[in-house]
Amino acid sequence: MEIILPDGSRKELESGATVADVAASIGAGLAKAALAGIVDGVAVDLGCEVHGGQQVAIVTNKTPEAIDILRHSTAHVMAAALVDLYGDVKFGVGPAIENGFYYDIKMDKSLGPDDLAAIEARMAEIIAAAEPFERRVVTRAEAEELFADQPFKLELIAELPEDEAITTYSIGKFTDLCRGPHLPDTSKVPAFKLTKLAGAYWRGDSDREMLQRVYGTAFFSKKELETYLTNLEEAEKRDHRKLGRELGIYTMDPLAGVGLPMYLPKGARIIRTMQEWLRRDLYERGYEEVITPHIYNADVWKMSGHYDFYHENMYFFEINEGDDENPRMSEYGVKPMNCPGHVMLYKADLHSYRDLPLRYFEFGTVYRHEMSGVVHGLLRARGFTQDDAHVFCTKDQVVDEVVAILDLVDHIMTTFGFEYTAEISTRPEKSIGSDDMWEHATTSLEEACARHGLEYEINEGDGAFYGPKIDIKVKDAIGRTWQCSTVQVDFNFPERFNLTYRTEDNTEERPWMLHRAIFGSIERFLGILIEHYAGSLPLWLAPVQVAVLPIADRHKDAAADLVGKLKAAGGRVEVYDQNEPMRVKIAKAQSQKIPYMVVLGDKEVENGTVSVRERHEGDLGSWDTQKLVDIIAEAAL
Amino acid sequence: MEIILPDGSRKELESGATVADVAASIGAGLAKAALAGIVDGVAVDLGCEVHGGQQVAIVTNKTPEAIDILRHSTAHVMAAALVDLYGDVKFGVGPAIENGFYYDIKMDKSLGPDDLAAIEARMAEIIAAAEPFERRVVTRAEAEELFADQPFKLELIAELPEDEAITTYSIGKFTDLCRGPHLPDTSKVPAFKLTKLAGAYWRGDSDREMLQRVYGTAFFSKKELETYLTNLEEAEKRDHRKLGRELGIYTMDPLAGVGLPMYLPKGARIIRTMQEWLRRDLYERGYEEVITPHIYNADVWKMSGHYDFYHENMYFFEINEGDDENPRMSEYGVKPMNCPGHVMLYKADLHSYRDLPLRYFEFGTVYRHEMSGVVHGLLRARGFTQDDAHVFCTKDQVVDEVVAILDLVDHIMTTFGFEYTAEISTRPEKSIGSDDMWEHATTSLEEACARHGLEYEINEGDGAFYGPKIDIKVKDAIGRTWQCSTVQVDFNFPERFNLTYRTEDNTEERPWMLHRAIFGSIERFLGILIEHYAGSLPLWLAPVQVAVLPIADRHKDAAADLVGKLKAAGGRVEVYDQNEPMRVKIAKAQSQKIPYMVVLGDKEVENGTVSVRERHEGDLGSWDTQKLVDIIAEAAL
Repeated sequence: MEIILPDGSRKELESGATVADVAASIGAGLAKAALAGIVDGVAVDLGCEVHGGQQVAIVTNKTPEAIDILRHSTAHVMAAALVDLYGDVKFGVGPAIENGFYYDIKMDKSLGPDDLAAIEARMAEIIAAAEPFERRVVTRAEAEELFADQPFKLELIAELPEDEAITTYSIGKFTDLCRGPHLPDTSKVPAFKLTKLAGAYWRGDSDREMLQRVYGTAFFSKKELETYLTNLEEAEKRDHRKLGRELGIYTMDPLAGVGLPMYLPKGARIIRTMQEWLRRDLYERGYEEVITPHIYNADVWKMSGHYDFYHENMYFFEINEGDDENPRMSEYGVKPMNCPGHVMLYKADLHSYRDLPLRYFEFGTVYRHEMSGVVHGLLRARGFTQDDAHVFCTKDQVVDEVVAILDLVDHIMTTFGFEYTAEISTRPEKSIGSDDMWEHATTSLEEACARHGLEYEINEGDGAFYGPKIDIKVKDAIGRTWQCSTVQVDFNFPERFNLTYRTEDNTEERPWMLHRAIFGSIERFLGILIEHYAGSLPLWLAPVQVAVLPIADRHKDAAADLVGKLKAAGGRVEVYDQNEPMRVKIAKAQSQKIPYMVVLGDKEVENGTVSVRERHEGDLGSWDTQKLVDIIAEAAL
Repeated sequence: MEIILPDGSRKELESGATVADVAASIGAGLAKAALAGIVDGVAVDLGCEVHGGQQVAIVTNKTPEAIDILRHSTAHVMAAALVDLYGDVKFGVGPAIENGFYYDIKMDKSLGPDDLAAIEARMAEIIAAAEPFERRVVTRAEAEELFADQPFKLELIAELPEDEAITTYSIGKFTDLCRGPHLPDTSKVPAFKLTKLAGAYWRGDSDREMLQRVYGTAFFSKKELETYLTNLEEAEKRDHRKLGRELGIYTMDPLAGVGLPMYLPKGARIIRTMQEWLRRDLYERGYEEVITPHIYNADVWKMSGHYDFYHENMYFFEINEGDDENPRMSEYGVKPMNCPGHVMLYKADLHSYRDLPLRYFEFGTVYRHEMSGVVHGLLRARGFTQDDAHVFCTKDQVVDEVVAILDLVDHIMTTFGFEYTAEISTRPEKSIGSDDMWEHATTSLEEACARHGLEYEINEGDGAFYGPKIDIKVKDAIGRTWQCSTVQVDFNFPERFNLTYRTEDNTEERPWMLHRAIFGSIERFLGILIEHYAGSLPLWLAPVQVAVLPIADRHKDAAADLVGKLKAAGGRVEVYDQNEPMRVKIAKAQSQKIPYMVVLGDKEVENGTVSVRERHEGDLGSWDTQKLVDIIAEAAL
């Protein structure tokens, strides 16, 4: 028989040959490196038999599919170790996930962090023993007998379609219900680590049993594992949920509901500073602010299309427009985006070509449904504020407007030291608008990038149904990327809301409409900034810029005097005048990541100076007070 | 028999004497001035018989009850005139209302504004004829016969309780089903005017018939009527709905729903300026801004008490916290006030007496249900933004905090040239909190007013169930009063949310909590300001402060240059550079109530000057450009 290799070449093999045989037929090196195969697009074990005419690829640790196989296999190794150590363990599911794997288990003992080392030690023994992963195809009856004391597995078996082949994988005494594929044997796990414990409802359903979830990860080299663990630690230190709480930025109250952050004074200061900073810039750039309601009659959402296509992400309620005796119910929806309000404002007046481009912006708080399982601090919440704008312009103005938006993106992102990349998404299969419009819009986006000198990748067919878009992804201080800004052409709204303008020739035309956001969500961007700066926001944005630390009570007047000067210069200042040792005060201010800590004692009061500590650089010595005031004035908006 | 007069004195009268006889027995002057009576607290006709032991007061045109009787009687005179003029008229209801009266009628002819003069002329004849108002008590059968061709009256008769006496009043041929009382005769209507026509559903029900509504008013002197009509005209000219549209401040789109204003760029500028102006002041005064969501889980509203006591004013909806297969519905509510968010923020940290007073403020947009019939532009909307703050303090700090709030009220109101009065509302029958707490709170409010030098009236028993309050009413330029600021002590929230702070003695205490708003609703206050200033907002608040008017194209560069200087000084500027005659440009800028219109021609460009027109003072001659820049810089926040 003959099989086909990835390069299109053909290989003659004995009938009954396996993926491993294919690897060996190519070379001894590949035979050694082989971990699994991909046959006609499906990942399979090395031991899987191949047939004439099949496309066969060998999976090594360089192949993208390999990492999930490694992690899934390591989950089995962990399960085997658990059985060895604790005997009676009931198993839920144990998949590979992003960055690792987990297994959900039920057992009498409640595992603690100290148990993880013991489990890891037993896993290391299993790995050293190079136990093969043995695959078996079993009948339903055999499966039910094999897993007779595994209630969760029995539930999964009962749900398998009648005609599906049931397979199991064993390592030593441990057998799991599993589709595979797996590594050939346990020695192929080069580096692993158990990372944490959590609770998880069986099948994610809070009405079902609570299981113990053990998380771990695995890599093909010790170095990769170490890098991953270091970054994980760094990310944890920077976690905006932890820092957000410690720095007094925001809080979540379970009573308030899911995904609804509430901003403490310091958080509100940062958000207002971000808004005011952007607002001034937008006015400079010819934008005009508007303010629109948070709720609208459902008729608006029907006209916009959200009622049909975005319904499950929205919150709808009813208003009685009559009275108790003669109720007349109207449906209303909380806004998930600001576009309809801006479009209705556009329609409130007649427009001529002379008015265009018209650029409306709003810091509009929107609410979108997210499953409670995926909400995550400020990064994914149900309520957030978009720095939203809509540009209404003529067809010929599109390129200039997009260039101007890219300039703004560049200004904002470089201010925060973010590198960024661009992607242009083109026409998807299901879409509205003529070929001409798509062509003009897509070309305009490309031309704008080119004129701005911004390189971009093309995401073929990934545009919205209503038009193509540019997405901007920023890279933070520890190398993670975040999708933030977006520029989208919209063919839908102008059509559905019948927007028009009068041309120079006194005819009526549809304006072109651009959606754009720079931060995206202001609060999410704040979350990204907190992690990017590890909480040490730049001076101009820090909620407290200077901590004034009087040494003794007799220096409080001088402290108040200094605070007055700094506030007059537009500064945000706190005085630490509790009866505490100076090192405690400094430690507190340092933990609040306050840029400048200034000490006032007899010498300073006498000389009109301050002793300055900077949060990163430490002691900066004695400064003339005016120098500090000037730096703070410079940082004011 | 003996009746009792208002001063407590008694009067001996013949049996069968009427109210008119009582008046005559007191004096000839009173007999002449008498219009009706009040017997044991009930208003009655002059012809009403009195009985021994009754309290009897005479109603003259000085008595508060008189004006409604006059207007109700004038409604009858109008009805009689309509019958005289048009024959077959079906009558609905015709009550006295605030500032006048109306009658709802059905007839073939559709009345137009021109018909009102004819109706007034016929009314004048009826008044000149001094026709008596004749009262009759009739049986239900007689009433049904009398109003056999008046279907609306028959419907009203059918709904009268079995045991209620049915009365009619006639003037000449016209008879109305009516409880009375009325004037003795039509000559007692000294001054009246029909004011407008409208449509109205029978019984306010849109499923019933649409009737014609004729509005009018009446006064006891021609002078009062004239003053009223002049003020009405002035109020119409100042109507913020009309000006709001003309000045590009806001728009309402019926598609968007009821009571949901959308702010155009100029409106948003004013609102942001008001907010920023207040925000800076609040920081100065030791407030801290917070930001809270617009929606909360219903558990919050249950804990706060709103779920039980404010439910019909709120908008509730459900969120599925599970998935389609396993739905788990949670109820959420859109916030009608900001208190719960601020209280949860307070609870996010432990507090010591050293932290108090803690003053949280928020420009929080809230949504409250209003019947669609009562929403009125910005003055009564379903969505509005409170300049809301909550002060958490110790018992001993209450007076100082209230004094500080009254200082703030004074600063804000005098800035806008508003006079204001204060009312303190005390403990109502249904209320929570101990006598001690009410006593301390009420005394504190009084003491604060006294220390601030603010006179106040007491509204006995008119406080909220949760505490006493001070309400501030402002008087606008045409004498109308508006309830704006409020300071309220709240015993409810600290208790229900279990708020505490640690005292100097290291014990736990409940903080005292004050609600306060100065503008009340920022948008409503803007509506009041528009009417108060007749659209000519003060320079610092005007959305456009300067209109730059270049005479010819060759002056456009100088115009752009001036705009740059004014914007750099913090100014809000527009250029009128269309190809239009200067008088058209000036008329346009004038109609936009722009404070300064500056003309740029050859002479001005050459000399570095501007020709200045002020919106009220007219031509101010030639100014050095810097003078204008300085004035604008001075007006910037």
